[in-house]
Amino acid sequence: MIKVKLVGATGYGGVGLIELLLRHPEIEVSTLIAANDTGKPISHFYPHLQGFCDMMVYAADAPEADADADVVVYSTPDGIGMQLAPEEVKKGRKVLDYSGDFRFNSVELYKEYATRLGLPPTHKSPELLKQAVYGLTELHRDKIAEANIVGNPGCYAVACILGLAPAAQAGMIENGKIICDGKTGISGGGKKPKPGFHYPEAYDNTYAYRLTGHQHVMEVERELSLLAGCEIQTTFTPQVVPMSRGIMATLYGTLAANATQKKVLAAYKAFYADKPFIRVSDAPSSTSHVRGSNFVNITVACDERTGTLRIISHIDNLIKGQAGSALQNLNIMFGLDEMAGLQLPGAHP
Amino acid sequence: MIKVKLVGATGYGGVGLIELLLRHPEIEVSTLIAANDTGKPISHFYPHLQGFCDMMVYAADAPEADADADVVVYSTPDGIGMQLAPEEVKKGRKVLDYSGDFRFNSVELYKEYATRLGLPPTHKSPELLKQAVYGLTELHRDKIAEANIVGNPGCYAVACILGLAPAAQAGMIENGKIICDGKTGISGGGKKPKPGFHYPEAYDNTYAYRLTGHQHVMEVERELSLLAGCEIQTTFTPQVVPMSRGIMATLYGTLAANATQKKVLAAYKAFYADKPFIRVSDAPSSTSHVRGSNFVNITVACDERTGTLRIISHIDNLIKGQAGSALQNLNIMFGLDEMAGLQLPGAHP
Amino acid sequence: MIKVKLVGATGYGGVGLIELLLRHPEIEVSTLIAANDTGKPISHFYPHLQGFCDMMVYAADAPEADADADVVVYSTPDGIGMQLAPEEVKKGRKVLDYSGDFRFNSVELYKEYATRLGLPPTHKSPELLKQAVYGLTELHRDKIAEANIVGNPGCYAVACILGLAPAAQAGMIENGKIICDGKTGISGGGKKPKPGFHYPEAYDNTYAYRLTGHQHVMEVERELSLLAGCEIQTTFTPQVVPMSRGIMATLYGTLAANATQKKVLAAYKAFYADKPFIRVSDAPSSTSHVRGSNFVNITVACDERTGTLRIISHIDNLIKGQAGSALQNLNIMFGLDEMAGLQLPGAHP
Amino acid sequence: MIKVKLVGATGYGGVGLIELLLRHPEIEVSTLIAANDTGKPISHFYPHLQGFCDMMVYAADAPEADADADVVVYSTPDGIGMQLAPEEVKKGRKVLDYSGDFRFNSVELYKEYATRLGLPPTHKSPELLKQAVYGLTELHRDKIAEANIVGNPGCYAVACILGLAPAAQAGMIENGKIICDGKTGISGGGKKPKPGFHYPEAYDNTYAYRLTGHQHVMEVERELSLLAGCEIQTTFTPQVVPMSRGIMATLYGTLAANATQKKVLAAYKAFYADKPFIRVSDAPSSTSHVRGSNFVNITVACDERTGTLRIISHIDNLIKGQAGSALQNLNIMFGLDEMAGLQLPGAHP
Repeated sequence: MIKVKLVGATGYGGVGLIELLLRHPEIEVSTLIAANDTGKPISHFYPHLQGFCDMMVYAADAPEADADADVVVYSTPDGIGMQLAPEEVKKGRKVLDYSGDFRFNSVELYKEYATRLGLPPTHKSPELLKQAVYGLTELHRDKIAEANIVGNPGCYAVACILGLAPAAQAGMIENGKIICDGKTGISGGGKKPKPGFHYPEAYDNTYAYRLTGHQHVMEVERELSLLAGCEIQTTFTPQVVPMSRGIMATLYGTLAANATQKKVLAAYKAFYADKPFIRVSDAPSSTSHVRGSNFVNITVACDERTGTLRIISHIDNLIKGQAGSALQNLNIMFGLDEMAGLQLPGAHP
Repeated sequence: MIKVKLVGATGYGGVGLIELLLRHPEIEVSTLIAANDTGKPISHFYPHLQGFCDMMVYAADAPEADADADVVVYSTPDGIGMQLAPEEVKKGRKVLDYSGDFRFNSVELYKEYATRLGLPPTHKSPELLKQAVYGLTELHRDKIAEANIVGNPGCYAVACILGLAPAAQAGMIENGKIICDGKTGISGGGKKPKPGFHYPEAYDNTYAYRLTGHQHVMEVERELSLLAGCEIQTTFTPQVVPMSRGIMATLYGTLAANATQKKVLAAYKAFYADKPFIRVSDAPSSTSHVRGSNFVNITVACDERTGTLRIISHIDNLIKGQAGSALQNLNIMFGLDEMAGLQLPGAHP
Repeated sequence: MIKVKLVGATGYGGVGLIELLLRHPEIEVSTLIAANDTGKPISHFYPHLQGFCDMMVYAADAPEADADADVVVYSTPDGIGMQLAPEEVKKGRKVLDYSGDFRFNSVELYKEYATRLGLPPTHKSPELLKQAVYGLTELHRDKIAEANIVGNPGCYAVACILGLAPAAQAGMIENGKIICDGKTGISGGGKKPKPGFHYPEAYDNTYAYRLTGHQHVMEVERELSLLAGCEIQTTFTPQVVPMSRGIMATLYGTLAANATQKKVLAAYKAFYADKPFIRVSDAPSSTSHVRGSNFVNITVACDERTGTLRIISHIDNLIKGQAGSALQNLNIMFGLDEMAGLQLPGAHP
Repeated sequence: MIKVKLVGATGYGGVGLIELLLRHPEIEVSTLIAANDTGKPISHFYPHLQGFCDMMVYAADAPEADADADVVVYSTPDGIGMQLAPEEVKKGRKVLDYSGDFRFNSVELYKEYATRLGLPPTHKSPELLKQAVYGLTELHRDKIAEANIVGNPGCYAVACILGLAPAAQAGMIENGKIICDGKTGISGGGKKPKPGFHYPEAYDNTYAYRLTGHQHVMEVERELSLLAGCEIQTTFTPQVVPMSRGIMATLYGTLAANATQKKVLAAYKAFYADKPFIRVSDAPSSTSHVRGSNFVNITVACDERTGTLRIISHIDNLIKGQAGSALQNLNIMFGLDEMAGLQLPGAHP
């Protein structure tokens, strides 16, 4: 079995990976690390795991934290992975990081990202940054297969980039501008209680936030620009809806001259023909259709009357938006079947 | 007291008006009519009204249905008001209709509307149609004051039109195209249970619907085109989020050459300076801030980097989107204070 | 106008009273005090109040905090009111406190209460404690009318005591034991975010808490024992359900020998005949029927087959369970109509 | 592979079994039957199954409905299984039924059950009824292993019976009376939209129903009486809380003379020592801890002060309360590992 050392085990991103690996035939969690919730089994913090995973959670500097591992997964906020990864890489371990630490592989781009977020602008492991691969499996499968360091994509970024990649590549977006109207469930904000996520404030309520700039925009623009071969600018409106899980990104652009709904649909079906986790359709879908799974349901619904490219992308923010993408990447990094441990449809209702 | 005969009293739009009129100093509900839920007091269907309104609900053809009234409000689906209104008008009563029956004042426009919806294309009261005034108070106050027949606007239309009216009038929308990304609470679908509104299907779920065309688009385009002085085309994406009440419309267009966030904000503040139910700001708001009230909270949040006009409009779909607008119109139709009975902030949380 | 100085203005209990007083003809909020959220208008913290109440929130030691007032309302946690009230009483002001500080009028009983909660056992204003009246209006109307100091009841206690008072008084509870199975909405836990109230944890989830003893049990036992003329012991199970507002208390006891469903129902109707906020019925009700109002909906549903007294009591925890009861008490303390400012049915849905 | 013909495939109980069998190593769904939703693949009705189960749904009289099968599962309302089962049994197939059709193995008991529900009192397959085994695996494992016909228990019944079985058997319930305060998520009412389950009515709302008698009481009383060796009477209060999934049953009785919290806890741990799906504890749990799994979390929380036996039982109503229990029974009926296909912890949050 391939052994995973999971840092940040007690957050939603950590427990998500634990859940997925419980059914994985070749990868297992071997060490659980956390900053605060330590000294107790993970099933103390997540009682549904009782009997399934009762491993102890250790602090990063505990002796047990240094057990044997093939790969270290950082399910941690920005700034942690870049600090701890070098030592792990020296030990010959691969690294996958959920944060922005390894999503940009130059210090300049990282600086821009960090500056937007108000983080220290200097990356702490520039030598590792150079090797880092952006972990959006559908776009970078081959590089991920050879990577030692993978930066898992942002949850919104997964929905937006996959929602527009075929149109970008096919030159179907006129004038290089797109709008991403994003709606997220509240689990995307993590496990830590905050005023806007307090049940009485969050129920029966929808609101926008970070209107002056969300940290996932840079990824979206880079990836789509690469595919389009020209600059793609993104207006991104992050919004919270009263759900626990799910992201729905409604994406808009100007339809290029020759593009029609029919052509766009065909382009999407072709682009994703061999991608096992992408479902393309011209019928409406819903976040509940992907809840609990690693699938991306993409609806192509252009408005020819107004000449508008319109795509709706649905993911489970904690699976395809986080732990599922992580596992998909791990599968590829270790030469396994891309779908191993991810062959699950979720549950309804 | 001005007497209201309320047809469709047992739907959400009906009970909403009853609730509001309970505190109105000069208008009262005098007769309650419904198609199905008849022969019992309204408080049987809505027990929270017990002791506040225990009036009997009658069928339209019951003798009691013909009691004295100053105005008839049709809180009914398309097709009812146009059939029943002529007789009421003959009796000298004013008419306000919640449906699309009197939103368009030519048979041609009505035909287009009805055709989109799959309704019979011929309006049944063309002579009344000519006199009908579109009941968006902030835009048509003077005409409403003199109107005998008012077509109350669609809930989404209220959010979209008010959200873009100042920009349209000021010529700040480049190229005549806008995008309306609408999110609605489920009460917007009415009282009748439907599969997509069944709790286990609707909770933790967000989805788009009617992607090929929503019935409120025509109103939006007509009103904004009138204000802009040129054709405004709308791409509208109606979406359901797991809320009971509230509409949030995120509106996008291309910023005209000289327009900036600062100028747009100023234009909005000026346009709505004397409109008591509109709050303009550049800070994010939320549907919970207007829940239970007749207010429209408008956030001006243009993205100058991408040259995008971005406006977010929040309403309570059952108040400003329906019964509240109706009462605001009634106030004006009868020469009363526009805010009478609507001076309420809602409750939090 | 009677002036209220409101301490703890920015919590849910504070804003609830502000909302109610907005429509009160004779009482108004005159000073707003808070511990943390100070230096800004209340409408900054509760934007729905914008234009309705934009008064500044002050710290308790700010000069403005000492403005003229007829009554001081402490919407604060245990321990605050007893410390601050003496000074206010000296100034001739009446006092109403939401916490347990003035619910027990002997130092011994307070000590027992405080000990259960892990609070310091010594009451800080024993001389005021003696004058304190328990503010359950339906039971202590006359004393409240003459009181200078009123201890507003706990939210669960309101639902339980009113749900069982008639049975207790009529001797219909055999063997002196009752069970209170309580379900509360999350707003009952206040405005402060906590892990169990974080939306992703609280949605789609029901759980019990404080199984070894809830602070409201003492009130319940005292009041019911007084009515019954013998000791009534309570097993109380507090439970959280995924709602914002509402308490439903399902109450069980052994039916006394001669008691039947019919007799119990009659006893309840008689007991509450002149209580304007109590609705008694043998039909099921729901928390939504009292949401947004000061009403208590009581369902009498004894199970004669098993000889079980069963009563279900529904309140809005933030109104009849808190701010509404407070206002009902204020009305009586100042000789006003008990229903002033409370004549509201709530809104549906 | 063991082949399952699933009748009622498109209800929540049907899709639940399909989901579980997707991961079962030795049992598979082979034929899908429904009353209404036929002629399309099951993934049309449940799009999350796309790519996992795209089998066609047939009417019961379609030629394809008669394909080979080892067992027929009726996920259907009362009255269907008893009509269709005889023919299947003749073909040598085993039968498992979700409804009350085979929960009582005498015509007299069935008659009583049917009468309570207002169903025709005569069982249509009395000869099969005699062989029927009540499918609560933890109590009737051996009989189920040899059964040809199993009546799957009611969802509430699972929670109540398993919650009280150890106390009943150990004689810890004084005076033969228990109270079951049950809270269910709305999926328990099935897939069909109804007024009380319409999102705007169901959100932020808790209510009781069927206060004069719920159909699951008979099972509860029979099973507990059998264990206790004397009659156990049940007062059952079914209540709806705004969740999709989950049942929490709070169970009360009078503690027998010598029973203490410690002894009760010990008795529960002993009783369930070898039952893989039961977790016993004295700490509070929650429905979210069992959501998506076949586990029963039982909290023993007696109130010694009042002499009250108090047990809280948590299940996922659609798994342990329905499809999971069904699969657990199928495993045992076919000599497989009881946990096969059920080794899943659910997902959090």
